[in-house]
Amino acid sequence: MTDFPPIPKDDTVLVLSHMQNDFIHKDGKGARIAHDQMYGTGTMDRIKALVAACRAAGIPIIYHNETFRPGHPELRETRGGYVRGTGRVLGLASDQMAIRGTWGAAILDDVAMDPTRDEFAIDNGKVDPFTCTEFEVLLRNLNRNIIMIAGLACNFGVEMAARSGNERDYGICVVSDCVDRFLGDYTERTLTDLLPLYGRVETSDVLIRELESQ
Amino acid sequence: MTDFPPIPKDDTVLVLSHMQNDFIHKDGKGARIAHDQMYGTGTMDRIKALVAACRAAGIPIIYHNETFRPGHPELRETRGGYVRGTGRVLGLASDQMAIRGTWGAAILDDVAMDPTRDEFAIDNGKVDPFTCTEFEVLLRNLNRNIIMIAGLACNFGVEMAARSGNERDYGICVVSDCVDRFLGDYTERTLTDLLPLYGRVETSDVLIRELESQ
Amino acid sequence: MTDFPPIPKDDTVLVLSHMQNDFIHKDGKGARIAHDQMYGTGTMDRIKALVAACRAAGIPIIYHNETFRPGHPELRETRGGYVRGTGRVLGLASDQMAIRGTWGAAILDDVAMDPTRDEFAIDNGKVDPFTCTEFEVLLRNLNRNIIMIAGLACNFGVEMAARSGNERDYGICVVSDCVDRFLGDYTERTLTDLLPLYGRVETSDVLIRELESQ
Amino acid sequence: MTDFPPIPKDDTVLVLSHMQNDFIHKDGKGARIAHDQMYGTGTMDRIKALVAACRAAGIPIIYHNETFRPGHPELRETRGGYVRGTGRVLGLASDQMAIRGTWGAAILDDVAMDPTRDEFAIDNGKVDPFTCTEFEVLLRNLNRNIIMIAGLACNFGVEMAARSGNERDYGICVVSDCVDRFLGDYTERTLTDLLPLYGRVETSDVLIRELESQ
Repeated sequence: MTDFPPIPKDDTVLVLSHMQNDFIHKDGKGARIAHDQMYGTGTMDRIKALVAACRAAGIPIIYHNETFRPGHPELRETRGGYVRGTGRVLGLASDQMAIRGTWGAAILDDVAMDPTRDEFAIDNGKVDPFTCTEFEVLLRNLNRNIIMIAGLACNFGVEMAARSGNERDYGICVVSDCVDRFLGDYTERTLTDLLPLYGRVETSDVLIRELESQ
Repeated sequence: MTDFPPIPKDDTVLVLSHMQNDFIHKDGKGARIAHDQMYGTGTMDRIKALVAACRAAGIPIIYHNETFRPGHPELRETRGGYVRGTGRVLGLASDQMAIRGTWGAAILDDVAMDPTRDEFAIDNGKVDPFTCTEFEVLLRNLNRNIIMIAGLACNFGVEMAARSGNERDYGICVVSDCVDRFLGDYTERTLTDLLPLYGRVETSDVLIRELESQ
Repeated sequence: MTDFPPIPKDDTVLVLSHMQNDFIHKDGKGARIAHDQMYGTGTMDRIKALVAACRAAGIPIIYHNETFRPGHPELRETRGGYVRGTGRVLGLASDQMAIRGTWGAAILDDVAMDPTRDEFAIDNGKVDPFTCTEFEVLLRNLNRNIIMIAGLACNFGVEMAARSGNERDYGICVVSDCVDRFLGDYTERTLTDLLPLYGRVETSDVLIRELESQ
Repeated sequence: MTDFPPIPKDDTVLVLSHMQNDFIHKDGKGARIAHDQMYGTGTMDRIKALVAACRAAGIPIIYHNETFRPGHPELRETRGGYVRGTGRVLGLASDQMAIRGTWGAAILDDVAMDPTRDEFAIDNGKVDPFTCTEFEVLLRNLNRNIIMIAGLACNFGVEMAARSGNERDYGICVVSDCVDRFLGDYTERTLTDLLPLYGRVETSDVLIRELESQ
C-alpha cells in the first residue's frame, strides 16, 4: 500500500472523460452505454460534488470529449478490419453519434462547463487524450502535472488517460466512485488490481476532504 | 464475432515485447516476474515457432525492449509519488534491472535477433512502444501497418501496444497463446473481453497456418 | 537536382495552411500579416486553381487552421518569457484573433470547404499540424502519405509541416508559388535552399499539369 | 527587443546537438560537414566553456545524437523519393555514417559525457529530439522546462529542437556563437530574424555570466 500526500490543489487538473449527452443522457443515442451506470448508482451525484469541490479549490477542469466530424472520417474501416477500437465496435459511426456541433456531442447539462474560469473542452475522435489533441498544450500552459480522472469509460478513456499520462510522467489519480463499471467485475478488478500500478486510486469523499483542508 | 482476413504477410510486423534476460531467464534479476510464465507453460516454444513462421514468410521483427540508462534516470520519483508505472512498482530501479549494455537488458538467446534480415530492437524506458521510441519510424520505413504482438506482459507492454497502436490506426493482432497471464484470470479476461475491442486476438497455430498458405 | 515522379493523385492530400479571415481577409484583425501577400501577388488565384485541380483529381483537402479558445489559454506567458512562438509574438492573444467559432477564425470564402467530399478542417493552437491535432488520424484514415502544402506562412506553418512530416516519413511537396514571402528574401531562400532538403518544391502549374494527366 | 530574465540554472537543460565524430572530427566520414565550422572559428572552444559553466552551475546535459542501426533502416527510400530529410540528402546511409556502436556515432572526446552527474545521451535516426526519442522522458524526470541548445546544425537539429520545443511549451535558448553557419548568411539570418520568434538567442559569454552569478 502506498501512502500518497494529499492531492495538491495547485498542481492538479480534473479531467472529466466523455460526459456527453449521446453516451449518458436518457435521450442520447447511446444511452444504453452509460445512462444507468451514471444515474442509477449515485455516480453522477458524486461527480457533481467532485466538480464543486474542484471549483472551490481553484482546480482547472478539462472536459475530454469523444467527438467526430460528420461522416465519422476518423473511424473508417481500414486494413481489412484489423483496425478496430471502441468507437468502431460500439457503432458510433453507424449510429451517427457524437457529431461535433450537435446536442449529442455536447457536455451534459448536469456538469456544464463554467466559461468564467479555467475550464476547457478538447475534441477527440480517439480515446487517448494525449495522442492527437491539445490536452498536453493546456496542461503545460496551466502548469499542472497531476491529472485527476472521473467519468467514462473506466476501461477505455479513463484507463487510457491513466496509462498514457503515466508514460509521459504525469501524476495520476483515478476517482474510483466517479467512474462506471461498464465491464462489470472486470472493471472492478481494473480499479483494485491494475490502476494502482499507474497512480493513486481513491474515492471522492477522501479527495474532497483533502481539497477542503488545503 | 468478427471475421478477419488472413494476417497479411506483406503488411505485418511481429513485435516481440520485453523478451529480455532480466525478466525471463532463470538467472535474470527479475526471473520471478516471468520465467515460469514463459518456460513452464509451453509459451516459449510457441513463440519460437511463431518467430520461425514469420521469418519463413518474410515478416520483419521488432524487439521492443524495456531498458534503462545506468541509475535509471527514466524512473525517478516525482510529483509526490503520483507518477508510478510498472517500471517503478516492480522495482526495476532498486533492483538495478535491464540496464543498457548489460546481459540483463539483452534479448533472450532463445529468440535471438537475426541481423541478416529486417529485425530491429528498440530501447524504451517506458512500456508504450509508440510514445518515445523509434518504433513508428521503423514501421513507416518498413511500410507495414499491422502489428502482431507476442511476449510480455499481456496487461502492460502488450496491451499498451494494442491500445496505442489502435489510437494511431495501426492494425492489431495479439497472439493469445504467446503471452503471459501475469495477473492470472484477470489477464485471461483481458484476452477474451477487452483486447478483441482493439483488434484481432488469435492463437499461434491459426496464424502460422495462415502465413504458410500465402 | 532530384527527379520526382508525378505527384501521385491516389497517395496525396492537399494541406491548406492558415487560410483564415483574420490573417488574410481585408477586414481581418491581422490583415497586416498576409492580405497583400495573398491578394496583391496573384497567390490567391493560384491557390484557387490548385484547389480546383485537386478536387478534379479526387485529392482530399485538409484545412490546417490556427485557432484558439476564448482567452487564448494556449498562449499563456510561462517560464519567464522563454516560451515564445509566432502566436505570442504576432500578438494573436492581445488582439483577440482567431477565436474558435468567430468569423476571424473561419476559412476564407474564396477557398471554402466543400463538405460533400473528403475535406476536413483541423483546429490547432500551435503551428505544427502533427503535434497536437487530429491531422495524422485523418491522414491514416484517408490512407494518404504525401502532403502537398500551400498557404501561410511559408516560414512558420508551411515549413513546420514540411519538417515535421519528414520526421514521420510522410512525403512532402511544397507549392512554391502558393505560399507567402512573409520574411522577404529570407523566405525566398527557404524555398530554394532549405525546403528541397525535406521534399519536393514545385510550382502550381507543373503540379496541376501532372494531376490532369493521371 | 525582449528582456529575458537570467537563464534559470534550476529549470534549464543544456542540449548538445550532434557533437559526434563522423560530423566534426577531422577523421570523421562527414568531416566535410562541420569540422571547419567547429574548429576553425573558435566555436568548439566556446562550447567547451559553456559545458564547463553548465557543470559548475549544476545544469544537466543531454547529448542529442543522430545515429542509425546498421544498414540505416531509418532512411529507406519511400514514396517515390518524396520522403527526403537531411539524413538522406547528406548521404549518411550511402557513406555508412553514424552507425550505433561505432566510433563515428560516438560523442567527440572534446565534449565527452561525464557519467558521474546528470548527463545523458539520446539516439535518434531523425533530427527532431522530441518526436521519436526519450528526450521528453528525461526532461520530465529531471523536471526541467527550458532547453539551451548548442551544436549542429543550426538550421537542422538546432532549429528543429527550438521549433518543436516551442510547440510543446518548453522554454528555448539558442546559444548563437556555439552553433555552425552551415548555410552561410542564410544561417546568420536564421539566428537574427527567425529563431528569436521561438525563444531567446544569446551569446555564450552573456549566458555564462548569468550562470556564474546565480
